[in-house]
Amino acid sequence: MKATIVTIGDEILIGQIIDTNSGFIAKSLDRIGVEIKEMISISDNKQHILNTFATLQNNVDLVIITGGLGPTKDDITKHTFCEYFDDTLVVNESVLAHVTQMIEGFYKRPITQLNKDQALVPSKCIILHNQMGTAPGMWMKKENTVFISLPGVPYEMKYLIENEVIPKVVHEYERPYIIHKTILTYGEGESKVAERIEDWENNLPSFIKLAYLPSPGKVRLRLSARGKDKVILEKAIEDNVTSLTKIIGDIIVGFDDGETIEVIIGRLLSKQNKTISTAESCTGGQIAKVLTSVSGASKYFKGSIVSYATEVKIKVLGIDEATVNTYSVVSAEVAKEMAVNIQKIMKTDYAIATTGNAGPTKGDSKAEIGTVFIALATPNEVIVHEFNFGQPRDKVIDRAVNKCLEILQKEILKNLL
Amino acid sequence: MKATIVTIGDEILIGQIIDTNSGFIAKSLDRIGVEIKEMISISDNKQHILNTFATLQNNVDLVIITGGLGPTKDDITKHTFCEYFDDTLVVNESVLAHVTQMIEGFYKRPITQLNKDQALVPSKCIILHNQMGTAPGMWMKKENTVFISLPGVPYEMKYLIENEVIPKVVHEYERPYIIHKTILTYGEGESKVAERIEDWENNLPSFIKLAYLPSPGKVRLRLSARGKDKVILEKAIEDNVTSLTKIIGDIIVGFDDGETIEVIIGRLLSKQNKTISTAESCTGGQIAKVLTSVSGASKYFKGSIVSYATEVKIKVLGIDEATVNTYSVVSAEVAKEMAVNIQKIMKTDYAIATTGNAGPTKGDSKAEIGTVFIALATPNEVIVHEFNFGQPRDKVIDRAVNKCLEILQKEILKNLL
Repeated sequence: MKATIVTIGDEILIGQIIDTNSGFIAKSLDRIGVEIKEMISISDNKQHILNTFATLQNNVDLVIITGGLGPTKDDITKHTFCEYFDDTLVVNESVLAHVTQMIEGFYKRPITQLNKDQALVPSKCIILHNQMGTAPGMWMKKENTVFISLPGVPYEMKYLIENEVIPKVVHEYERPYIIHKTILTYGEGESKVAERIEDWENNLPSFIKLAYLPSPGKVRLRLSARGKDKVILEKAIEDNVTSLTKIIGDIIVGFDDGETIEVIIGRLLSKQNKTISTAESCTGGQIAKVLTSVSGASKYFKGSIVSYATEVKIKVLGIDEATVNTYSVVSAEVAKEMAVNIQKIMKTDYAIATTGNAGPTKGDSKAEIGTVFIALATPNEVIVHEFNFGQPRDKVIDRAVNKCLEILQKEILKNLL
Repeated sequence: MKATIVTIGDEILIGQIIDTNSGFIAKSLDRIGVEIKEMISISDNKQHILNTFATLQNNVDLVIITGGLGPTKDDITKHTFCEYFDDTLVVNESVLAHVTQMIEGFYKRPITQLNKDQALVPSKCIILHNQMGTAPGMWMKKENTVFISLPGVPYEMKYLIENEVIPKVVHEYERPYIIHKTILTYGEGESKVAERIEDWENNLPSFIKLAYLPSPGKVRLRLSARGKDKVILEKAIEDNVTSLTKIIGDIIVGFDDGETIEVIIGRLLSKQNKTISTAESCTGGQIAKVLTSVSGASKYFKGSIVSYATEVKIKVLGIDEATVNTYSVVSAEVAKEMAVNIQKIMKTDYAIATTGNAGPTKGDSKAEIGTVFIALATPNEVIVHEFNFGQPRDKVIDRAVNKCLEILQKEILKNLL
């Protein structure tokens, strides 16, 4: 079973917004065994939309379209739907009641004609009710292809995918099994990892595909198995992960897609009733943000001080002014004091601190661009590392955040032994 | 002049990573007047890549391809290039020297065969030298279409677009003028804005297109004018923005794409030598992150305390325990104390504080899901607002952050008068 995802909107084609909808839809469909053939972004142009529909007709089973359903004049998807399916727009009373309830009941505003027009839908479509907004989803079939149109607002699209589209696809189509297993490695580059596992990779069965997903400081390896027999697929994935772990167990920090390092850290801390805090300079709060992105983080994350200004390091974090003057603000000594002090201030078991120069200019600090000091205070000691993460600025910050998480996870594991 | 952007990689099609490269490339090409016809994401499959190339051949002037250039087996773009152009891979000595320098010189590692293979390129290609990594970009022409292949790693792709692709396209092609003007509005929904400007919109000249880009709490309006005479386009955009400002001046906070509200706030604070800090609970550091995303933020942003745990609010931020007990942690009184205290702690002119319940569960707090209190301490007073931002969780946080920025910007402006 194959699907193509189409996003409509000039704002995507001129790079004004990044299309995150397609990724969410792809992940949701992949989980239920639907193969995504392509993702296409096209402009708000009727002829372009019609041509795209015609190309996809009978070549894929599903076409999922997002965007172009808002109340304003630049949204033309609904009219194009009518033209393609030779249909006309009619008022759907159930949608109208919902729109009226949202506008008058929740937002306490008088309903306008533009609001009411949201209830106009092609007469032949099956309505996908949108509890998160006023524009309904639409499901229409022509020959062997189902076209599903969803609003482009991410919250609304997500609600409709999870609550309407996926259940209906599961109900109406037979699909093969797809199993993915992601192995998360930290600390070695793509080439190095590839060389270590070359023999293992050459011996993978033909129904398992391996992909390398490198990013600064980490490489994810993704195994994908596709077939009819779930048991065989699972066994093959399990066996190959076991043999892989024997080869590169030293750099593997976790498995599976949801198993990001911050999730693993969260689980380790929760299990042991340990807590953590951060004191951040060059990473500007990003470590805190990553740690708190995990649901249930309030169990172990107590807080953070983002000490952007040197005076905040001294006055709020209590760094000794002499340390700053003697060693400079980007130094192992300052990083160490930051970690120790935030650990005391927040009363946590672990504390991580960063100070560095991410560039692009050298600024006040004497440190080379790319230099970052990372300090980790554990219940037993304080460890400081110095790195040079090169350039540009974003990469330095990303690599610093990833390195902090890697150091933290290894130390927590060590203290558990 | 038309271009299509093709991203290659199964990781995109299964939703494991979000394609941000296409957006960056689109923005860069749009700026020099190249129209993006489509963005397409396809799998790491040779036949699929070849079919896509054949479809695009002579239908667009430029095809920009990212992904599939890494050192590992799952990267097949280079071999597919050879097949499509009937070419063979040869060692490029200049690329080999660069790869050797990077691996042995910078990373201090012995060079491996996989590293060396990065220097293998189709014999007919024009090399785009990649100073940020080991995989070079490639420029190849067939009939009326130029195919450009770039590595998928964002830092490397960005470097090549800015330093190699754009200058070469500008040099080799004539392009029309495209002028965009974005008007940033806060505080009214898409339908409401559309109704207020309906007459104005109907009177726009045919060469100007209007798009609505709504997101929680704000709507951006984008005007795009395309044509041969730059002066006429600029004049028409200017006139229409002036007449628009007369209609909805009360909700306009800024113009242009780079002119996000955080940039405007930064400029206002810098000009007046004023400083700001944040104390964040439900927004978890995101306001600090947005404020510090502006280059030069260290001039006015001093720091932040992310008080995730109630005890941190009391012990670190100094919130009176009695206030928490009497009014609960999600209350106007706590928000107010947070703002006043962080203003004192960080010694800033302005301070913004948030406390709320973003959901999905009610947790310890008595407040309804979606409730957020925002407090702003200015040099003269403290203002507290209560909101209910509905659900889901992400939307509550986004709307809270946007509302904080809106309140802050309006207050700074007021204090300047």
